[in-house]
Amino acid sequence: MSLTIWRINLSSQKLSIEQPPDHWMKLGGRGLLAQIMVDETPATCEPLGPLNKLIFAPGLLVGHMLSSCDRISIGAKSPLTGGIKESNAGGSTGLLMALLGIKALIIEGQLVDPWWTMVLSVDGANFERADDIAGAGVSAAASNLLQRHGEKVGVSVIGPAGEMKLSAAGIQNLDKDKAPSRIAARGGLGAVMGSKGLKAIVFNSRGAIKPAVADINAFRDAQKRFTQSLLEQPQTKIYKEYGTAAMTRMCNSFGALPTRNFSAGTFEGVETISGEYLRQVIIDRGGDGKPSHACMAGCIIQCSNNYANSDGVSMVTPIEYETIGLMGSNLGIDSLDTIAILNSEVNDLGLDSIEIGAALGVAAEAGLLKFGDGEGALRLLNEIKAGTPLGRIIGNGAVSVGKMFGITRVPAVKGQAMSAYEPRAIKGTGVTYATSPQGADHTSGLTIRAKVNHLEPKGQADLSRAAQINMAGYDTLGACIFAGSGFAAAMDTIRDLLNARYGWNVDLDILQVLGKLSLNLERQFNINAGFTKQHDRLPEYMRYENLPPFNTVFDVTDEDLDNVFNW
Amino acid sequence: MSLTIWRINLSSQKLSIEQPPDHWMKLGGRGLLAQIMVDETPATCEPLGPLNKLIFAPGLLVGHMLSSCDRISIGAKSPLTGGIKESNAGGSTGLLMALLGIKALIIEGQLVDPWWTMVLSVDGANFERADDIAGAGVSAAASNLLQRHGEKVGVSVIGPAGEMKLSAAGIQNLDKDKAPSRIAARGGLGAVMGSKGLKAIVFNSRGAIKPAVADINAFRDAQKRFTQSLLEQPQTKIYKEYGTAAMTRMCNSFGALPTRNFSAGTFEGVETISGEYLRQVIIDRGGDGKPSHACMAGCIIQCSNNYANSDGVSMVTPIEYETIGLMGSNLGIDSLDTIAILNSEVNDLGLDSIEIGAALGVAAEAGLLKFGDGEGALRLLNEIKAGTPLGRIIGNGAVSVGKMFGITRVPAVKGQAMSAYEPRAIKGTGVTYATSPQGADHTSGLTIRAKVNHLEPKGQADLSRAAQINMAGYDTLGACIFAGSGFAAAMDTIRDLLNARYGWNVDLDILQVLGKLSLNLERQFNINAGFTKQHDRLPEYMRYENLPPFNTVFDVTDEDLDNVFNW
Repeated sequence: MSLTIWRINLSSQKLSIEQPPDHWMKLGGRGLLAQIMVDETPATCEPLGPLNKLIFAPGLLVGHMLSSCDRISIGAKSPLTGGIKESNAGGSTGLLMALLGIKALIIEGQLVDPWWTMVLSVDGANFERADDIAGAGVSAAASNLLQRHGEKVGVSVIGPAGEMKLSAAGIQNLDKDKAPSRIAARGGLGAVMGSKGLKAIVFNSRGAIKPAVADINAFRDAQKRFTQSLLEQPQTKIYKEYGTAAMTRMCNSFGALPTRNFSAGTFEGVETISGEYLRQVIIDRGGDGKPSHACMAGCIIQCSNNYANSDGVSMVTPIEYETIGLMGSNLGIDSLDTIAILNSEVNDLGLDSIEIGAALGVAAEAGLLKFGDGEGALRLLNEIKAGTPLGRIIGNGAVSVGKMFGITRVPAVKGQAMSAYEPRAIKGTGVTYATSPQGADHTSGLTIRAKVNHLEPKGQADLSRAAQINMAGYDTLGACIFAGSGFAAAMDTIRDLLNARYGWNVDLDILQVLGKLSLNLERQFNINAGFTKQHDRLPEYMRYENLPPFNTVFDVTDEDLDNVFNW
Repeated sequence: MSLTIWRINLSSQKLSIEQPPDHWMKLGGRGLLAQIMVDETPATCEPLGPLNKLIFAPGLLVGHMLSSCDRISIGAKSPLTGGIKESNAGGSTGLLMALLGIKALIIEGQLVDPWWTMVLSVDGANFERADDIAGAGVSAAASNLLQRHGEKVGVSVIGPAGEMKLSAAGIQNLDKDKAPSRIAARGGLGAVMGSKGLKAIVFNSRGAIKPAVADINAFRDAQKRFTQSLLEQPQTKIYKEYGTAAMTRMCNSFGALPTRNFSAGTFEGVETISGEYLRQVIIDRGGDGKPSHACMAGCIIQCSNNYANSDGVSMVTPIEYETIGLMGSNLGIDSLDTIAILNSEVNDLGLDSIEIGAALGVAAEAGLLKFGDGEGALRLLNEIKAGTPLGRIIGNGAVSVGKMFGITRVPAVKGQAMSAYEPRAIKGTGVTYATSPQGADHTSGLTIRAKVNHLEPKGQADLSRAAQINMAGYDTLGACIFAGSGFAAAMDTIRDLLNARYGWNVDLDILQVLGKLSLNLERQFNINAGFTKQHDRLPEYMRYENLPPFNTVFDVTDEDLDNVFNW
């Protein structure tokens, strides 16, 4: 059995299983999403209308217990950016789709009379009423579905935010331990799922025959070499110990830690929200807390964590750097407990913590809460939960808050909020924010680990270009950003894994080939949707408002920005 | 003394008076705005930021008691559409600027510590604190300013909506009888003025020497012929009797009267909101009411009115067709008294009644009020006045309401709501809505009076092209849409008036020349701002959702839309 395309017509509740066309075969994950969208999704369609398609595609290497390589890419035309959106997540969704032999799941049309759960299994697609979990938080909904369908299934589910079609709503997925903590967060894909009337998708692989590997011996050999390489990288140890929160101190030292709605790059409370502090608190408190935890089966990095309260009871899994930056320093909050409460709340609502953290920062600038006021932030999250007008404004993201309250200091590009790297201080990442077809997004091409002067504008476009190509490549493989260091030191393992898995004959440059192809396709979709170079710009104020402590503006030239994709 | 450019730097509160460059000389009103914006305003600037410029420019024929030719064009980059915006209004602002010899007023930068009133006179620009009128409605603010500066001044003022920087906020101007009833309504120019910290501008022409007419005899002769032509047109009589409300029955008969959020084209309550009914009610009630009234000095059409309550006390001046369509049938409201209350309220808040009517229609679809519920609509207007989150959502327009509440049936193009001609039933106007650089707007090129089958898609692009060119030409002259019928029957009077006024030697095709130039400039600005043909489209649902009673969709081809500006 080879990998197939599962196409769902929601209006008729019918599944058709198709052989992928040749030019889809060589792609997976992010690249395959882009190809499908260019081929099929009307680029000018209304994101929440019946013509948009919601697509799930595991990366090319998903399903084989390769460390950190089981990521699921989810995509559609974004209600937040109006352009292409791919958002990927760890957890078990990718693995279960691979076990079912699904190369891509394409969801079309809209269900009548929401809400529904779609169950995918060897028996095809089955639709069940979801009335009992409609309105429920992600956690309760996932528990309900696991109870009904058994602990071995995968679940993708939206929270109240997705049901309300808020543009900051994501799609939550289960981690390997069944916690709904792996969100395809960015760009409002939860709203697209909501617009389709789907509360949840259950992936049940019972009885499935996993598609065969072309040369299993060669695959195992390459896998060993990749694992070895990954174990040798210093980052692997760093991320295992401190998780992504290792970035907190580093960003602060670069003057790039978003602070009080991106008005400063260092935060006086950095120590108590640092990765080092986080680890110590978790260890000291014991109980449910875990300083290190794998979100995907087989991951040796285990950058996730479980944060417990002072009684040792789990508050949230995981606390990540982006959430610390956006819901911590960006809001002037220096308490991990407060961040954990906010994080848990947005997770359960099914919201992107980056977008909501940025939205709350703009809200603070509008006087809706004070910086440092965790209770005020929680109160605003409760407005989202209650579906009030104010809650909807915040739940639609940073640009929405700015628009409604007449605030122009909004850290966003193409409608999407920046993540926790201040682009005036890490200018290569600023280039990525500006030019990525995905809108402002660090996972599209982070540059902070490059050994350059990040304040110098020259050369940043080259740095961003290389990072964007690599990341688009890894996202097409289904590889986590942290697997990248292992692959980078043993590039032949990518070639060997792909050739062994699919019987292909690709070269050493395959990561570049996949990355460039994916980016070209994404840019093509956006051009078809009406995007131009004028959309590849940072917010105006970042060009004239100095960022402390280095009092720097974003001064990479427009010409450099316009040449990022000329390779 | 020749006409000059008055350039205000708000940051320094300085005025500089400049000679216009040659290529500005031949333009006025809408065309001049477009030229100035292409020359000076960064097209990608943040509309509410310091780099946007707010520009006032009287049309070329303003200032000479020509009937219906004293219109003022106000423009800036629009916070509603993100593109160029020109919104013109009658009243006395244009006349007073002409008396002061101001060809264009260019307002740059932002004032520190709002709010301020700027007083323009022969002594230059003077800034006064506006603390006593900050937060005040348009009516009270205008009264205060007239009291302070004398009854002879002109006033442009924003209401609370502009102060809140809401995208549906306009700039109100006094009519010839000092009522602040002539709003440059569309596109959020009031928010731009608000972002600059300006509550009001006072135009005081005392002591000014009006710029001379090159050949006064030739001018008077052409004026006579134009007046005669205007008097001979049947529309002049119709609009005098019924005002713009004459369109109500006509649109309903074409199945083009927006009803219940553009879900139908005929309204069962049409009779009690018709122009005929309106006239009779005004006459029957007597008192302050006037079925006919001139907004500009010298106008012989006098399409305005004053609507009084059953005690004969004025409720609002005027009630126009667009308001009847958007706040009447579009909300399922069949009572002129209710419409008058809503109209009066939006006027005083300084809001565009078209945008707000459309926003309320979408709000009704979202369940925030019931169709037909006038009290519910008033309650929502009070939310705007109070500056609540819900009020801000509505005050930011129809697209904002749709976005916040997940509604996709939003009658808007380029972010701006449609006016009261349903484009599926008057397809030429649909072409105008789709392609006008101004966003959906009937004044950009209305086609309902053409003797064609308005349901037939073929040929509508040609019709719209001709109408758009004409209207851009008239808006450059400062001529009201209703002056057009008089000019159209005596085209030589435009040529003769311009040559006599300026000592020029233009030809009979001058209206076309001005119209095409203006449109080309506007399109250039929008291209510079990042607009593409993908933005020249009606909302998706209008292509597949049938409109009763003729069950028609918008089926003009994209190719036709893309060729509108190929002349």
